[in-house]
Amino acid sequence: MSDLSDLTTEAASRDAADPLAHLRDRFDLDPDVVYLDGNSLGALPRGVAERVAEVITKEWGRDLIRSWFGNGWWTAPERVGDKIAPIIGAAPGQVVVGDSTSVNLFKALVGAARLALPDDGPPPGGAEASTGGGASNARTELLVDDETFPTDGYIASSAAELTGLVLRRVPAAGLAAAIGPQTAVVLANQVDYRSGTLLDLAELARAARAAGAVVVADLCHSAGALPVGVDALGIELAVGCSYKYLNGGPGAPAYLYVRADLQSRFRQPLSGWHGHVEPFAMRTEFERAGGIVAGRVGTPEILSLVALDTALDAWAGVEIEAVRAKSIALTDFFLRCVDELVPAGAVACVTPVEGARRGSQIALACADAERVMAELTERGIIGDFRPPDLLRFGFAPLYLRYADALRAATVLAEVLG
Amino acid sequence: MSDLSDLTTEAASRDAADPLAHLRDRFDLDPDVVYLDGNSLGALPRGVAERVAEVITKEWGRDLIRSWFGNGWWTAPERVGDKIAPIIGAAPGQVVVGDSTSVNLFKALVGAARLALPDDGPPPGGAEASTGGGASNARTELLVDDETFPTDGYIASSAAELTGLVLRRVPAAGLAAAIGPQTAVVLANQVDYRSGTLLDLAELARAARAAGAVVVADLCHSAGALPVGVDALGIELAVGCSYKYLNGGPGAPAYLYVRADLQSRFRQPLSGWHGHVEPFAMRTEFERAGGIVAGRVGTPEILSLVALDTALDAWAGVEIEAVRAKSIALTDFFLRCVDELVPAGAVACVTPVEGARRGSQIALACADAERVMAELTERGIIGDFRPPDLLRFGFAPLYLRYADALRAATVLAEVLG
Repeated sequence: MSDLSDLTTEAASRDAADPLAHLRDRFDLDPDVVYLDGNSLGALPRGVAERVAEVITKEWGRDLIRSWFGNGWWTAPERVGDKIAPIIGAAPGQVVVGDSTSVNLFKALVGAARLALPDDGPPPGGAEASTGGGASNARTELLVDDETFPTDGYIASSAAELTGLVLRRVPAAGLAAAIGPQTAVVLANQVDYRSGTLLDLAELARAARAAGAVVVADLCHSAGALPVGVDALGIELAVGCSYKYLNGGPGAPAYLYVRADLQSRFRQPLSGWHGHVEPFAMRTEFERAGGIVAGRVGTPEILSLVALDTALDAWAGVEIEAVRAKSIALTDFFLRCVDELVPAGAVACVTPVEGARRGSQIALACADAERVMAELTERGIIGDFRPPDLLRFGFAPLYLRYADALRAATVLAEVLG
Repeated sequence: MSDLSDLTTEAASRDAADPLAHLRDRFDLDPDVVYLDGNSLGALPRGVAERVAEVITKEWGRDLIRSWFGNGWWTAPERVGDKIAPIIGAAPGQVVVGDSTSVNLFKALVGAARLALPDDGPPPGGAEASTGGGASNARTELLVDDETFPTDGYIASSAAELTGLVLRRVPAAGLAAAIGPQTAVVLANQVDYRSGTLLDLAELARAARAAGAVVVADLCHSAGALPVGVDALGIELAVGCSYKYLNGGPGAPAYLYVRADLQSRFRQPLSGWHGHVEPFAMRTEFERAGGIVAGRVGTPEILSLVALDTALDAWAGVEIEAVRAKSIALTDFFLRCVDELVPAGAVACVTPVEGARRGSQIALACADAERVMAELTERGIIGDFRPPDLLRFGFAPLYLRYADALRAATVLAEVLG
């Protein structure tokens, strides 16, 4: 058992040895705050304010309409997508940025149903599917984990209604096993937004492939926190927001991943002019653009998009494996500090204690959690309350220190003591 | 016939007498440019850069996650909607801002189909519909004008496919006459994006009401240029962008109008968590929020939204009727200048010459139009080229002077001379 002094020494020594410690300087942080809500709204990267100001005053104010091509606004959704791609393990040309996560989920789910259902050609699963699956017209269901972030379930319900599928909710842990020849589409959150539990996406992908079902992964709580490796997983589609671990700013545009070999067949329902093969020809009939451009809809919100573009520069030279290593070490250390300092029985960890089985957050069940989080915030420890009884602490490895983890646990102990 | 000196005198005298002349100071304009593309991307209102900088550095950088409620981010879509409402003649609580025009068209069209088709209750037309229309299950078509801005047609095609309607394209002038008992939904652009022709929306609304069809109006090229009067028209739904005459900035979020009495039955397909009655309860089942909040989907792009919020302050105290009066006078004057100065036969006006029959733009057909517009731009007259042969000049009455109209015509005459 360590005391506070030992933990303080350990935190200092870990921070001194942290190979990512220098990244903290890439953010504009309040020195009086320990910010453990970067999994809800990431901190402000340096340079964003200056870049947005330049876009407003010069590109909008002076270059005006000419900026769409002269300053690269038109192609920003793909260009910024290619900056996100390496963070989630995607080769270039498969990620496009724009619209909210919910809107991208809708594109992905309806597009996935069309990939999976016979009218739009054979399912993407290939040989395994034709031997292992039933008749493809027997695909009737859209599977979703029943602990999903709510908007995923809501959008899935609408997509199911419009495509004639039946929505079936099963526990995340049973998702892979639930996939069968009747499954058209599976929607899964890689990291549970409440508990932080990491789903075995590789197992899910294997089960889906064997059954010829199409996977849509929600990476909101995993991208930027751990190596997703979308290409290596072989999943078909993914979506994610850019305002959590990617630090793109409030409501920063989300992204859509469409695996390269499926792009020519990906027919998403929001067929706006930005996804047209020749938007300025202003033709009557919609003809889908090739490549990932097919995921675009309407005019992108440029100010939010350039903020994200600049924010992503904080990732320059960062290896996601190193981020993952620090994330686990940091959350392990926080759990130890909580164990040592917080009165026994005052909190119960609902996040898997084994680092490999969680994302980059720790959720602690606690009596009166809403009031406790308000008091923590009052004292400069900002996390999140999730009903009914969870304190949720997100650890963004790019800007958090071991000393921050210790301070958070110390203040939590004071509040609960 | 006036010569250039007479026209110069007239422009100066008109500018001196212009009751809206002072509004020009609300914009940050390049003194060397005559900007006639405000119907594509409106000019930069003063104060936007400062406000966005404050939101980035203080609200995001320091207040962080607390800004969603502490700084009013969460309610911004309705609050900013209520700033747009008077400009389009809507009472409060019927306009919500967020997403692109294309995405809002999709919400509106699928929502309209559900209002019009029997499964979702009786059509909104009321008594007239029940006597005048056929059986409501005979409603099979989605009508759209065949000169529509392309994205409207593309999205209408997708909405028709997903709702089982048949898309029928008819010329805008014949749209009202084409409405019949078979019509579920009519989508119409109030101002044609190419020719600037103003549609008689009142006639269309009457025909739709008589037949029990639901109207979706696209106000992109009319809002901020003329009094739309959505409430007075009695149409059901409308959408529009905010980056043209509303000057919200590049890709500024679009808006959706849902008539108050229909909001409780407006079931749009993008059922994201921001449209839930209690989003932070994180419940499994979607329960639609009341009021215009039902038009929301996912997390709004806050930086673009606050830019729009501030940009709309340029409308403080402005009467849209006065804007319309200046718009007609300004475009009339431009047409006269073109007539007087440009070599006979070099251009042909495709916009109605009667002011009451057009929006706030003038489109001139011209040989080699793309090159001509490039030369105009080179000389500081910025308009738009629309294939195959149109020079399009938008006149934003808030910041343009009669002297600008004269200068544009003068330079056009030089280029074509």
